[in-house]
Amino acid sequence: MTADNMDTITIFDTTLRDGEQSPGCSMNTAEKLEVAKALVELGVDVIEAGFPIASPGDFEAVQQIARKYGDRAQICGLARCRTEDIEHARDALQDAENARIHVFLATSSIHRKFKLKMDKEEIIKTTVEMVQLAKSKCDNIEFSPEDAARTELDFLCEVVEKAIAAGATTVNIPDTVGYATPAHFHTVIRTLKMNVPNIDQAVISTHCHNDLGLAVANSLSAVEAGARQVECTINGLGERAGNAALEEVVMAIRTRGDYYKCKTNIDSTKLYPTSHLVSSITGMRIQRNKAVVGQNAFAHEAGIHQHGMLQDSSTYEIMRPQDVGFVGTNLVLGKHSGRHAFRDRVVSLGHNLDDEALETVFQDFIELADKKKEIYDADITALVENRVGDTHDHWTIKSFHVSSGIDTIPTATVDLDCEDGEHHCDAAIGDGPIDAVFKTLERITGLSARLEDFQVRGVTSGKDAQGEVSVAILHNGKTFRGKGVSTDIIEASARAYLKALNRAEAEKIPGGDTTRRGV
Amino acid sequence: MTADNMDTITIFDTTLRDGEQSPGCSMNTAEKLEVAKALVELGVDVIEAGFPIASPGDFEAVQQIARKYGDRAQICGLARCRTEDIEHARDALQDAENARIHVFLATSSIHRKFKLKMDKEEIIKTTVEMVQLAKSKCDNIEFSPEDAARTELDFLCEVVEKAIAAGATTVNIPDTVGYATPAHFHTVIRTLKMNVPNIDQAVISTHCHNDLGLAVANSLSAVEAGARQVECTINGLGERAGNAALEEVVMAIRTRGDYYKCKTNIDSTKLYPTSHLVSSITGMRIQRNKAVVGQNAFAHEAGIHQHGMLQDSSTYEIMRPQDVGFVGTNLVLGKHSGRHAFRDRVVSLGHNLDDEALETVFQDFIELADKKKEIYDADITALVENRVGDTHDHWTIKSFHVSSGIDTIPTATVDLDCEDGEHHCDAAIGDGPIDAVFKTLERITGLSARLEDFQVRGVTSGKDAQGEVSVAILHNGKTFRGKGVSTDIIEASARAYLKALNRAEAEKIPGGDTTRRGV
Repeated sequence: MTADNMDTITIFDTTLRDGEQSPGCSMNTAEKLEVAKALVELGVDVIEAGFPIASPGDFEAVQQIARKYGDRAQICGLARCRTEDIEHARDALQDAENARIHVFLATSSIHRKFKLKMDKEEIIKTTVEMVQLAKSKCDNIEFSPEDAARTELDFLCEVVEKAIAAGATTVNIPDTVGYATPAHFHTVIRTLKMNVPNIDQAVISTHCHNDLGLAVANSLSAVEAGARQVECTINGLGERAGNAALEEVVMAIRTRGDYYKCKTNIDSTKLYPTSHLVSSITGMRIQRNKAVVGQNAFAHEAGIHQHGMLQDSSTYEIMRPQDVGFVGTNLVLGKHSGRHAFRDRVVSLGHNLDDEALETVFQDFIELADKKKEIYDADITALVENRVGDTHDHWTIKSFHVSSGIDTIPTATVDLDCEDGEHHCDAAIGDGPIDAVFKTLERITGLSARLEDFQVRGVTSGKDAQGEVSVAILHNGKTFRGKGVSTDIIEASARAYLKALNRAEAEKIPGGDTTRRGV
Repeated sequence: MTADNMDTITIFDTTLRDGEQSPGCSMNTAEKLEVAKALVELGVDVIEAGFPIASPGDFEAVQQIARKYGDRAQICGLARCRTEDIEHARDALQDAENARIHVFLATSSIHRKFKLKMDKEEIIKTTVEMVQLAKSKCDNIEFSPEDAARTELDFLCEVVEKAIAAGATTVNIPDTVGYATPAHFHTVIRTLKMNVPNIDQAVISTHCHNDLGLAVANSLSAVEAGARQVECTINGLGERAGNAALEEVVMAIRTRGDYYKCKTNIDSTKLYPTSHLVSSITGMRIQRNKAVVGQNAFAHEAGIHQHGMLQDSSTYEIMRPQDVGFVGTNLVLGKHSGRHAFRDRVVSLGHNLDDEALETVFQDFIELADKKKEIYDADITALVENRVGDTHDHWTIKSFHVSSGIDTIPTATVDLDCEDGEHHCDAAIGDGPIDAVFKTLERITGLSARLEDFQVRGVTSGKDAQGEVSVAILHNGKTFRGKGVSTDIIEASARAYLKALNRAEAEKIPGGDTTRRGV
């Protein structure tokens, strides 16, 4: 079977909606735009950009993504079966060339009874009314019966039929709580395919959660049964144990094309850079043994395997690192590398920077090359990501000093330049040198914050490794993140914390309702 | 169907063999014994303790685990189809009450051609001879046709039949490269079950790799087709993207008992503590959205989900945190808590310490409680794990001081007590304060090392959080790990690095061949 004869599976990415709902994974609009750009370049067909009614921030992000990328992918907004939800979604998507409204309503008996307190007739009636309303505002309508995998099959068939008759062009079958098994889920999709009379007028989609580790398998099983859209997220982000991982679904379909007889529009060589970008922006680290994009995914330790590898890589390798754009620890540049070589390398690593941003990162690179003999691909990616979603900084670090040790009270002295032209210097003590720096920064800026998350990642190995520090702080009930990169962990921490404080300072517009909702 | 009518699936854990082969996951004998103890308490039926021929260290670990836990679980040693491999395995397992020898030979055409350079007849002949040899030394024999999932089905049936006739009591069907799909793998197991005349004389087992994210699904699919043993690892450790995750397989069988009509002997409430222990010992961090044992596995962010949760937890929760022994961020103890309360808490967290170890950790606790108002479960676990696999220390830190900042050359001063009674003080500079401390420690100890891995984990959140630093260093071609916990990241780093140097110093016995091999 040639690629031309294969069905194309629509890849619907919900990293920016379901993924963003993961605890600790919320993103600001600049970060969402950066992810949306990467998703478009990856070749995602549909981007679920957010849940416009959830908050003014969600609305704004969907609107900006719709404006900027609505000609290169379908941009989708989520809505409950409520008039104001659907109107908000329509408004946010107004400027998208290709817009989709995604309406959902729970159908399982447990959700009907405990959450909605509606009977079957009310569910059908609301579904039909709200899909019709959405259809009056947008041709491209997706409907999801939430918790479909636990819904009585005959009722599910009825709801799906009515939703299609009311105008749904995609019917998405979510396993909302990650309860399905591959064989059972196959039966669900097969039953819909066989028993819903108008099923050919809509695309069947899946949306699987990974509570039992089966999200990818259930999605693929649905494809075998006739589903032609898969909802997934980069790195499997999402509520609880997350959604089906986009990179695993795509590589399974690609590697086992012989079996699934399907293909996708994804450029697989962008999978690794996109995974890395999302991990960096959300602070959600990827397990080393994660399939497809983990650090060990292509690493072979066992002697007997290495021996086999030397003979023929296919004895142990069903994918090649370059198929997913895996960035190894290749030595690429040193302090004498010029702008041109640097730009080439940045582009080949999958980053698209304008001239100004490139120059900023190049200056960071020159500074780093002074401290560190060998610059690896991962170092460059860290430098680029450090500047992603950059905001205007109210304060910058001029200098700092810390002193600590056993039987020493950790003490920090910090000198900040402020955009008012002044510079402000102060000192504080802490439980450790980093805590002392944080307390000094709070004292100078006058912003108090609670440290919610603190992560250190060694960007490269060896003694002169760069460390990347990510922090999340809670200030006035909102979370702000910051990152810093340096060979000095204290300096990296100070830069990360000040970045977060700068973001808190910049956030002068009143925040809306930040409660989020989902399928 | 009641539990009594359900088949029991044998859980075969290979964390200590295939898991330990993951790059960066090698463990020393003390660490392996600690993991073996946890596996026995978890209720694992078979522990694959290592590959005795691979190195003297592997041999010793298998031998000690066989002696210590051979009456509480079957202890298994791996062997290629070679006389010396089988004899080494037999020797290492000699003292186990329940021993199993696991013999493997690749059967797929690609492995026959490129790795073994043997034809089908030679494969059959070698299998029969070597299974018979193993059987003459041990009743309990497992045979694995390596890369079975890519082996011609008729040849696979033939090999399996001959292996059973030669004495194999378990036939394990590995998907060595993670290539199978659930439906395809079901067919493979079903075909063996139907077409191998003597299949009822052996247990069918699976061993699935996760390259496409399908290891758990393929294992469960094999169970549906009649397999009654699943090979898996804690946290899905293993070559490349790893093996099927034990915790996911077990919780899928438990949660969907209605569907699989099977059970296991695993005490699911020990899953989370065991996962945490293995993560801590190997330095292999668990992704926050990892199924069953990830930090977010039971966390609900979305407002609508929370609303559902309040009504009835089963609307969004198919497992309860307590089912897997999930340790939340419960406030448990403060500085006025006594030994008794502390011991109770340690035990309830799944740690078994003797009186001496308990006292050591209690002193650490008192010291921590001085610096930190609220002590969480996770803090206690970090303190306990910090003392796991403890070796005698040649050097201990008496005091240290660091000074660093922008435009300051990072400088460390360290004073070490040596077991010879002397103390040694020196200073050094570095790229950052941590690097300066490491260089000073090397200067005093006279040991040079290459930093291979450096990880920081915030044990708890908030300003007075403890940080846990894990390092791996390469010294004379061997990897040594160390951990340190403190509210001061520099102190934690110093303790971690010195622990690794102490381990390098203690390793005076000449190391054997450290090349490892696997299925």
